[in-house]
Amino acid sequence: MIAIGIDIGGTSIKGAFVTDKGEILHRFSLKVSKDSPFEVEIKKLSDLINKEIKDNHLEGKIKGIGIGNPGIMDMDEGLIIESPNLPSWNNHNLKKEIEKHVGIPVKLNNDANVAALGEAKFGSGHKYKDLIMITLGTGVGGGVIINGKLFDGHLHQGAELGHMIIKMNGRECGCGRKGCFEAYASATALIKDTKAMMKRHPESLLTVIEKELNGVDARNAFMAAKRGDKYGKKLVNNYISYLGEGLLNYCNIFRPEAIILSGGVANEGEYLISRVKKYLAKHHYGMKGSPEVDIVISSLGYDSGKIGAACLVLFE
Amino acid sequence: MIAIGIDIGGTSIKGAFVTDKGEILHRFSLKVSKDSPFEVEIKKLSDLINKEIKDNHLEGKIKGIGIGNPGIMDMDEGLIIESPNLPSWNNHNLKKEIEKHVGIPVKLNNDANVAALGEAKFGSGHKYKDLIMITLGTGVGGGVIINGKLFDGHLHQGAELGHMIIKMNGRECGCGRKGCFEAYASATALIKDTKAMMKRHPESLLTVIEKELNGVDARNAFMAAKRGDKYGKKLVNNYISYLGEGLLNYCNIFRPEAIILSGGVANEGEYLISRVKKYLAKHHYGMKGSPEVDIVISSLGYDSGKIGAACLVLFE
Repeated sequence: MIAIGIDIGGTSIKGAFVTDKGEILHRFSLKVSKDSPFEVEIKKLSDLINKEIKDNHLEGKIKGIGIGNPGIMDMDEGLIIESPNLPSWNNHNLKKEIEKHVGIPVKLNNDANVAALGEAKFGSGHKYKDLIMITLGTGVGGGVIINGKLFDGHLHQGAELGHMIIKMNGRECGCGRKGCFEAYASATALIKDTKAMMKRHPESLLTVIEKELNGVDARNAFMAAKRGDKYGKKLVNNYISYLGEGLLNYCNIFRPEAIILSGGVANEGEYLISRVKKYLAKHHYGMKGSPEVDIVISSLGYDSGKIGAACLVLFE
Repeated sequence: MIAIGIDIGGTSIKGAFVTDKGEILHRFSLKVSKDSPFEVEIKKLSDLINKEIKDNHLEGKIKGIGIGNPGIMDMDEGLIIESPNLPSWNNHNLKKEIEKHVGIPVKLNNDANVAALGEAKFGSGHKYKDLIMITLGTGVGGGVIINGKLFDGHLHQGAELGHMIIKMNGRECGCGRKGCFEAYASATALIKDTKAMMKRHPESLLTVIEKELNGVDARNAFMAAKRGDKYGKKLVNNYISYLGEGLLNYCNIFRPEAIILSGGVANEGEYLISRVKKYLAKHHYGMKGSPEVDIVISSLGYDSGKIGAACLVLFE
């Protein structure tokens, strides 16, 4: 069985033919312009899909097209309500337009949910039935897999795992609430904290590393900590406690077998994982007597979105 | 179809014959002593169950026995690991002992989960498929229903909804963490806050109401607020904000169709509900553009535990 998985980003659309064994047969991609009308972009995307099906001799062999898209959608209808990166797509029906041009059924879901599904089926989550994935990037995204299936709540509007308050009346979050997990554990938050620390302690190694990296991103604090800088260590320790408290909440709420970490900060790999595990163990994985929760790094990388989108169709 | 539902409390065990329409055919109960050995208590309970089956002419007609029990258990095995109210039951197999004496299959789950299942099937949650129930009592308990089924996580150890931190490094919680929802939104927390307010403002109506009620419980603050006392109002407003932030978190995480409130504080009924709804509406039910979540009070009262326990068997 073969499905097409489509991952819609802010500057490009990436697609792949994916088998029910999770193999990618062929990849394709398309630049997307946010100034171009929805209809023009969808016509270009549909034409490309039709061409790729033909070129790869897959006519009549595609079960469906799964799409992972950021933003707020009516997923059953296929309607885009609010697209943060491509505002000209707002209030357009992505599902119906592609079905009209390509003639293959389309399923739509949130990009974070879809990535979690991909990791659960064919990535570092393949041996677990119950897991959550937390993406530590510009924001904090999340996906929940229960008994091997994507859980996304009423009208697919749940699993907004970054928007759980961990510090009431705390930092302002883009969502309008104060003290969200995202406002403490995203790469964006770590960068803000790093810059504030550099301002207070310009003598720290963080200043040297800023020059080496030609700027500040989520890596600076970890690099400084690894080189023994006390301000870098403090930043990392604070970050681990924010991340740890959020994960402990999710241990108590979902009690998953595993939590997969992905996104920019997860590139810290074993250095991050070992510290998070230590924090969770010290706090009894959420509550005394509670079973251990595995913490792992995502393994599909940039393919998780395409593979996961295809899974919407392959495992419906 | 008929099942027996058993609700194990700290001082008594309550049971009922429940039909698959949620009707209670007959109730029975038994006092339990925490000083008496497990074997003696279970023999008494089993004898009572056998007698009730015979007296009600239900031999061969009982599909199974469902039990809701507080504390930490290996639910599949039927083993009680830690029983907060009946410590002599620790490390005993409740399921196997009753099956041995009565000869009917037994299923075990947490009391909060079971109550949520009862409300979902036959109480104020019957028209929803996705809901959560939050019990505002001595602690804050919770149960999660997804697509009409009880969700309780890996090894049935999830859905500990009271133990989500809403204020990092905040109030100490019985679970060992700091800042749990339970430490702010339980009846116990409200009583503590009421006593602290009375100490700071002995001139408030709270002092008068203490004499009327012969003590302080979760009602005092609400009574004072209703009579216009500014300190009572402040207590209630603070309580609504704690409860509201926790519920907003669960809106974002689960996006249920409804949240059912139960337990002592839920006795405030419409006065509580109207204020909680206002708080949620003001904060867009968790996030701008998110669908509304119904807030309702549990309707089965003290029967939710027995009916829910029977549902473990009726809807397995």
